[in-house]
Amino acid sequence: MEALVIHAPGDLRVEEVATPRMLPNQLRVRVRCGGICGSDLHYFNHGGFGTVRIQQPMILGHEVAGAIEAVGTALEGKFGVGQRVAVSPSRPCGQCRYCQQGLQNHCLDMQYYGSAMRMPHVQGAFRQELVVDAQQAHLLADPVSDAEGAMAEPLSVALHAVRRAGSLLGKSVLITGCGPIGAMLVIAARRAGATHITVTDVAAAPLRSARKVGADETIDVAEDAAMLARYEADKGHFDVLFEASGNERALTAAFAVLRPRAVIVQVGLGGTMNIPINTIVAKEFDVRGAFRFHEEFATAVALLNKGLVNVKPLISASLPYRDASRAFALAADRSQAMKVILNFD
Amino acid sequence: MEALVIHAPGDLRVEEVATPRMLPNQLRVRVRCGGICGSDLHYFNHGGFGTVRIQQPMILGHEVAGAIEAVGTALEGKFGVGQRVAVSPSRPCGQCRYCQQGLQNHCLDMQYYGSAMRMPHVQGAFRQELVVDAQQAHLLADPVSDAEGAMAEPLSVALHAVRRAGSLLGKSVLITGCGPIGAMLVIAARRAGATHITVTDVAAAPLRSARKVGADETIDVAEDAAMLARYEADKGHFDVLFEASGNERALTAAFAVLRPRAVIVQVGLGGTMNIPINTIVAKEFDVRGAFRFHEEFATAVALLNKGLVNVKPLISASLPYRDASRAFALAADRSQAMKVILNFD
Amino acid sequence: MEALVIHAPGDLRVEEVATPRMLPNQLRVRVRCGGICGSDLHYFNHGGFGTVRIQQPMILGHEVAGAIEAVGTALEGKFGVGQRVAVSPSRPCGQCRYCQQGLQNHCLDMQYYGSAMRMPHVQGAFRQELVVDAQQAHLLADPVSDAEGAMAEPLSVALHAVRRAGSLLGKSVLITGCGPIGAMLVIAARRAGATHITVTDVAAAPLRSARKVGADETIDVAEDAAMLARYEADKGHFDVLFEASGNERALTAAFAVLRPRAVIVQVGLGGTMNIPINTIVAKEFDVRGAFRFHEEFATAVALLNKGLVNVKPLISASLPYRDASRAFALAADRSQAMKVILNFD
Amino acid sequence: MEALVIHAPGDLRVEEVATPRMLPNQLRVRVRCGGICGSDLHYFNHGGFGTVRIQQPMILGHEVAGAIEAVGTALEGKFGVGQRVAVSPSRPCGQCRYCQQGLQNHCLDMQYYGSAMRMPHVQGAFRQELVVDAQQAHLLADPVSDAEGAMAEPLSVALHAVRRAGSLLGKSVLITGCGPIGAMLVIAARRAGATHITVTDVAAAPLRSARKVGADETIDVAEDAAMLARYEADKGHFDVLFEASGNERALTAAFAVLRPRAVIVQVGLGGTMNIPINTIVAKEFDVRGAFRFHEEFATAVALLNKGLVNVKPLISASLPYRDASRAFALAADRSQAMKVILNFD
Repeated sequence: MEALVIHAPGDLRVEEVATPRMLPNQLRVRVRCGGICGSDLHYFNHGGFGTVRIQQPMILGHEVAGAIEAVGTALEGKFGVGQRVAVSPSRPCGQCRYCQQGLQNHCLDMQYYGSAMRMPHVQGAFRQELVVDAQQAHLLADPVSDAEGAMAEPLSVALHAVRRAGSLLGKSVLITGCGPIGAMLVIAARRAGATHITVTDVAAAPLRSARKVGADETIDVAEDAAMLARYEADKGHFDVLFEASGNERALTAAFAVLRPRAVIVQVGLGGTMNIPINTIVAKEFDVRGAFRFHEEFATAVALLNKGLVNVKPLISASLPYRDASRAFALAADRSQAMKVILNFD
Repeated sequence: MEALVIHAPGDLRVEEVATPRMLPNQLRVRVRCGGICGSDLHYFNHGGFGTVRIQQPMILGHEVAGAIEAVGTALEGKFGVGQRVAVSPSRPCGQCRYCQQGLQNHCLDMQYYGSAMRMPHVQGAFRQELVVDAQQAHLLADPVSDAEGAMAEPLSVALHAVRRAGSLLGKSVLITGCGPIGAMLVIAARRAGATHITVTDVAAAPLRSARKVGADETIDVAEDAAMLARYEADKGHFDVLFEASGNERALTAAFAVLRPRAVIVQVGLGGTMNIPINTIVAKEFDVRGAFRFHEEFATAVALLNKGLVNVKPLISASLPYRDASRAFALAADRSQAMKVILNFD
Repeated sequence: MEALVIHAPGDLRVEEVATPRMLPNQLRVRVRCGGICGSDLHYFNHGGFGTVRIQQPMILGHEVAGAIEAVGTALEGKFGVGQRVAVSPSRPCGQCRYCQQGLQNHCLDMQYYGSAMRMPHVQGAFRQELVVDAQQAHLLADPVSDAEGAMAEPLSVALHAVRRAGSLLGKSVLITGCGPIGAMLVIAARRAGATHITVTDVAAAPLRSARKVGADETIDVAEDAAMLARYEADKGHFDVLFEASGNERALTAAFAVLRPRAVIVQVGLGGTMNIPINTIVAKEFDVRGAFRFHEEFATAVALLNKGLVNVKPLISASLPYRDASRAFALAADRSQAMKVILNFD
Repeated sequence: MEALVIHAPGDLRVEEVATPRMLPNQLRVRVRCGGICGSDLHYFNHGGFGTVRIQQPMILGHEVAGAIEAVGTALEGKFGVGQRVAVSPSRPCGQCRYCQQGLQNHCLDMQYYGSAMRMPHVQGAFRQELVVDAQQAHLLADPVSDAEGAMAEPLSVALHAVRRAGSLLGKSVLITGCGPIGAMLVIAARRAGATHITVTDVAAAPLRSARKVGADETIDVAEDAAMLARYEADKGHFDVLFEASGNERALTAAFAVLRPRAVIVQVGLGGTMNIPINTIVAKEFDVRGAFRFHEEFATAVALLNKGLVNVKPLISASLPYRDASRAFALAADRSQAMKVILNFD
């Protein structure tokens, strides 16, 4: 079997790797589609982010869907060969104090696909065959394409962020930064009942995508920063901010248009930021980090299966995995691409 | 101006009444459509419900929409003659301890349209002209019909009940009882992100309406009570129950299919019920009453204006207000009608 | 080793039983004190409660403290022989869906001491020696007596009920029913910051205990039911009700003195109750079941160890376990006893 | 009547001012004690803080207690001459959108005593006579001294911050910064059920006060920064941080010892801070601003009246108001003073 292995910044190779042994309560999945994520791009372009760095060869990828090739003996009757599944990359230990509190995304022994956060690194899912636990495999309905199935992962990130915000029904929502997660947040916030969604970015193409997936208003703050100021009256307008840019100015510029007691869900990673803490105090903001997801993967697949969300407008291109370098270059170009899918067939 | 005045059970008259004086921060609205609510039917058929009884002639009605006829001097520039509005019947005092806590639906001096809860009764909105405060008037977008505008009120009841349940994103929801409020709950729960919605009733017609507005599954418990039992495994399945029948058996039968820590939102009124309290204890249910609404009216109109909900399948018929008796008889017939609209033009 | 084994109502025997084998991550505890709980009394007097019935001989008891006799090899260094511990009877599986959600008290395979809820019954802790898992054993500080240590369990029940209510800081609290759990609720609610605590019961002795542990006011509703009526103005006064009697009249009588949006935590078991459901709807009460506890056991022991709660006034008597019949009779007499402790030394 | 009027940094004068007219629903209070707050010190030493600057003469002070001198005609029977009261400085408008949502501390027209946040400034309460609204006056019980009554205000700030954290029952709490608010947070967190309270500061004297009011552990991070590191294992220990120093290093140093999903309540003001935003994301912290208070003032007085909190250890000295300069100098000296009281008799 072949896999996409990162060795160093810019050094991504198609390599032959062994298929792991399958246990009785596992499945072997023929991977069909894999989405390129911002973290894959960081490994590819910079060798990592923050203190997380590639220290050994690692298979990239954690957004994949495919078809079941083999079913473990303990799972017969529950899964069948040929069924298509989206695969959750979240593999918590189930035993630690956080797993026992239902906080699996904070597991002390998490084995998240394609992550250099720990040594040895956890190998990823950009490979032709994958052996997965039953809980990772979520059946896709017929109308959902493999590429859409691969989108279940970033959709899960957005759903988790939305759940961190509490109920959005009837709320006014601001989303700063419209990469794939920002765009997924538009979809998720709308699905959760937000009545008004404004999206900001510094580029035109992502904002076009935001409108395609249902944003009520988009503002190019590089062109027209004053547009937001309309929302400053009476201590601010928006009930909830999803900060998906990881950009200090995006976060702090939003403070003036958020109402007292607004909830800010920080999703974007962005190093150290200079924050006017007195505004957080005086307006009693509630700033909540959102990191990955766990049970939201099942929700993402259910929403896709029932047609309750439409992620298709976010799929920019689909390329063979052997053209990975071209695919990664395209994925890094915000003027051309939102989500780029690798084809593993 | 004419109005529909209830004098005694079955004695509903079209009467001439005076149009009240308009204050500077008020509007005069030409009523066009009014929806007949279950409480209107109770006054008409039984003279009231529980301890609430008609003790003096009272204009019925609290679900209305119309067009602005005159604008108070303090509201010029904010509203214009001819604009169409849905009118919120919720008129709290703004001063009492509950209003000052943001709990306007528990106002100690509430003046809710068409309610015999207090003496003198609060006169209702089934009349040709209505003088309303600015905060009651919510502009309707062009594609929203007057009849849909009149549906903003029952939709608000459902939205309030959904908000009482907390976030529904990814939740499995059971709705027992599919009158107009039960059907609106399907719409509201879906809009709030529920991934699975099962509706039960004892009649076929209401369940057909439930499917039209998006229920995933309907169960006629008069015909096939066992269908629900599929959900009993592992201490139950549903995360949330909206009880909209006011029927003791509907509530207690649901206990077996609700998971531990399930939220039960009781919307239906139903007198005294015999409840197995030990199940509430052992499964740690969370039973929350939901009563009317306040700020949700604005949400209802926003959702209608943006096409984020579709209430049209619930409008069964539209009759002239002078045919009120026929309209009320039709509204009381569950095999034929979901929501009946009175036309005041 | 000897144990107290219930065979049938009234048939409680001191019997010789085997000490179980100790695994490497377990401890063997010499039991010193055991508190008699209401459920022990139900087994003794009636053979059970509701559908839960003794179907085979079962060792009673789940409120115990003692001293470590032997330490499993995997726990050396963490525990030492001679250390005194309170023992949590909560033994969830750790694997099921509820354990993985942090809801251990709803475990699908719970092995709670001295419970006939499942077959075979789970043997209890009224025995001279007990083998326990590390997570069950909580070290007692020197000033805390063995009898107080045995009170950690009912205190945990009260702490769990208080946590179900949300923050009590500054709240007005009503507690109906003042058995051992009701009295523990006074302690727990006070510790959690309640500013006003009223307790009702139908007997004088329990209310004296309530005052000893800090209740601001007690009302004997058998003598002076009208005393509560002072709290009816403006739709009611109390923010939170802890219903610890399992008595229908206690629950429904409280409705008039609870403010809209009041939280009702139902702790008492009591079969089927006739409930005016319309009041729950119109006042939007929030009725929450509270069942056992899990992580609150550690909190209970921490509060005891630091002297932040005082449970001593609730210990009515201490008797040798061989006098179990006398002890159970005393424990059942509300005019004489709050909590009766069995001495296993 | 005399008052303490600030004209410029360092220029605090005792001046004759007029007593305002009393309306029917007001009281005239003879002020007896006033506590010097950090914001008073900022006005005195620096002319303000951040963008808030003295632009016109302003009476300082907002922490006062005294005795009723005259009762408005509408309040007869509810208050009596000679009764002692703590006076809440929180005077919201009651009409704006935030007041109508129960968020009075975010009132759009707040008249908080002794604040230069708006023009004209709101005159303060360091004066011999004060005319107050009924809702501002809270009766003090006999055992509570006037000086303790003046402490109701900073206690309210702490209670509000604790309520922002949600239930503390059984929680491990870290408090960074032990000025008067930090010390009050020890009292409030303990009263709310925290089982472990660690306090850090960079000076010995404040930490001694922390221990006097019940802190379990104090760490002088200027002397022994490593002491905190014991809490870093398994992604951190503390459930809740109250940041009361306004110091960037205090906040960010705490990140390593806070568990995932920890709640951080930011109380201290401190300009712009450099924050490692990725830690907030990855550990999913919940950073909540806490600003002033409103309904918590009644809670503060109730806790003082019932002896459920003891603020006496925090009163460092009591000086005549005519010695204001000496009192302000003492209040600014952390090695000598926690709370300094001005005596207005």
